[in-house]
Amino acid sequence: MTSEQFFLIEKYMISCMSDSAHDKEHIYRVLYNALNIAEAENNVDYDVLVAACLLHDIARKEQFENPHICHAMYGGEKAYSFLISNGFDAKFADRVKHCIQTHRYRKNNQPQTVEAKILFDADKLDVCGAVGIARTLVYKGAVSDPLYNLSDDGTVSDGSGDISPSFFQEYKFKLENMYSRFYTAKGAELAKTRQQAAVDFYNSLYKEVNDTYKSGTDILKDIIE
Amino acid sequence: MTSEQFFLIEKYMISCMSDSAHDKEHIYRVLYNALNIAEAENNVDYDVLVAACLLHDIARKEQFENPHICHAMYGGEKAYSFLISNGFDAKFADRVKHCIQTHRYRKNNQPQTVEAKILFDADKLDVCGAVGIARTLVYKGAVSDPLYNLSDDGTVSDGSGDISPSFFQEYKFKLENMYSRFYTAKGAELAKTRQQAAVDFYNSLYKEVNDTYKSGTDILKDIIE
Repeated sequence: MTSEQFFLIEKYMISCMSDSAHDKEHIYRVLYNALNIAEAENNVDYDVLVAACLLHDIARKEQFENPHICHAMYGGEKAYSFLISNGFDAKFADRVKHCIQTHRYRKNNQPQTVEAKILFDADKLDVCGAVGIARTLVYKGAVSDPLYNLSDDGTVSDGSGDISPSFFQEYKFKLENMYSRFYTAKGAELAKTRQQAAVDFYNSLYKEVNDTYKSGTDILKDIIE
Repeated sequence: MTSEQFFLIEKYMISCMSDSAHDKEHIYRVLYNALNIAEAENNVDYDVLVAACLLHDIARKEQFENPHICHAMYGGEKAYSFLISNGFDAKFADRVKHCIQTHRYRKNNQPQTVEAKILFDADKLDVCGAVGIARTLVYKGAVSDPLYNLSDDGTVSDGSGDISPSFFQEYKFKLENMYSRFYTAKGAELAKTRQQAAVDFYNSLYKEVNDTYKSGTDILKDIIE
């Protein structure tokens, strides 16, 4: 890919993300994750991979405004149109579209090409480790979800049985289960090196909050007549 | 304090916090932190302490809407008025006001009473450890600040030289320096037990992101013509 082509695609990506500083950071991390994973794979078309990484979330805004729209399916079409109208050939645009349309976990729509598998893993890697924890907390702040819910007995719920959204619920239902869902060996390996940081953070936060509530509520009961 | 008095003050606190789920969680953690710290102190007036904890952030909204208002100073006055108009005596209301007005770090306005020192420490404890990390990330999400800034050479800044706000900047300028600012031995001890979790999280996040950018940008340079 020429630097002109890279900047053209990058500029379009930025215009699609203009309302969120965080999503743009995510795009670059996914691109760099993907390039790191790609080094351990064979026959990777780097042009397809780079374009797919830059464009994989360009329809996040449409999905946010209308949750019936799937950002992967719609983003694939949007990327295809953009590439065709900017002089890229149809075969290339089609391969980029496949990567984007399969980067979201769906049983019946899985990545088939090496570039699609790398994008999938690079994107999932950004939900692992400390960065996955940080992104989830930032998101919880943006949508005003709490860190945790309280159980009926007034203790802090660890999130595993929760119906209401919270950081602990998201950790137990999603983050904790990310580490086995990788297509590439390098993606799985990178995820494993990050896993302990996420586990440690969750355990520390739960212990801090749970200990505080447990002893605090006991003392409160004693001093309120 | 009777349970009726507790519920009256709690209800008023909740009415002041109605626009933010997070601030309410914070109030209960500060209350429970304070009760844990108080057990190791002598001559604590628990009624003053409980009222001060519940009411310490009731003017956050006013400060948010007008940054010239100090939530500690204004909150102290607001709490005093509330307590007087609900039948608490002036001496009690005055002692609660002192705690609230000195809970924010200011060189010329430091806590003098044991209850004020405990509230100060209980509040600072909620900026330590994993809970301090979590609250900061949630806040960064709510105000759309990024996790990190990039240095001029394109590498990830660790936050220590940053002018622009980011999570790493907040960590380096504030969170990292919290652990020596305690009035009570128990507060300092609890903070110390939480310190490593915060340090570990920051180090893990920095390593994950920095490694990703470093090797990713190197590979990108090689493949872009």
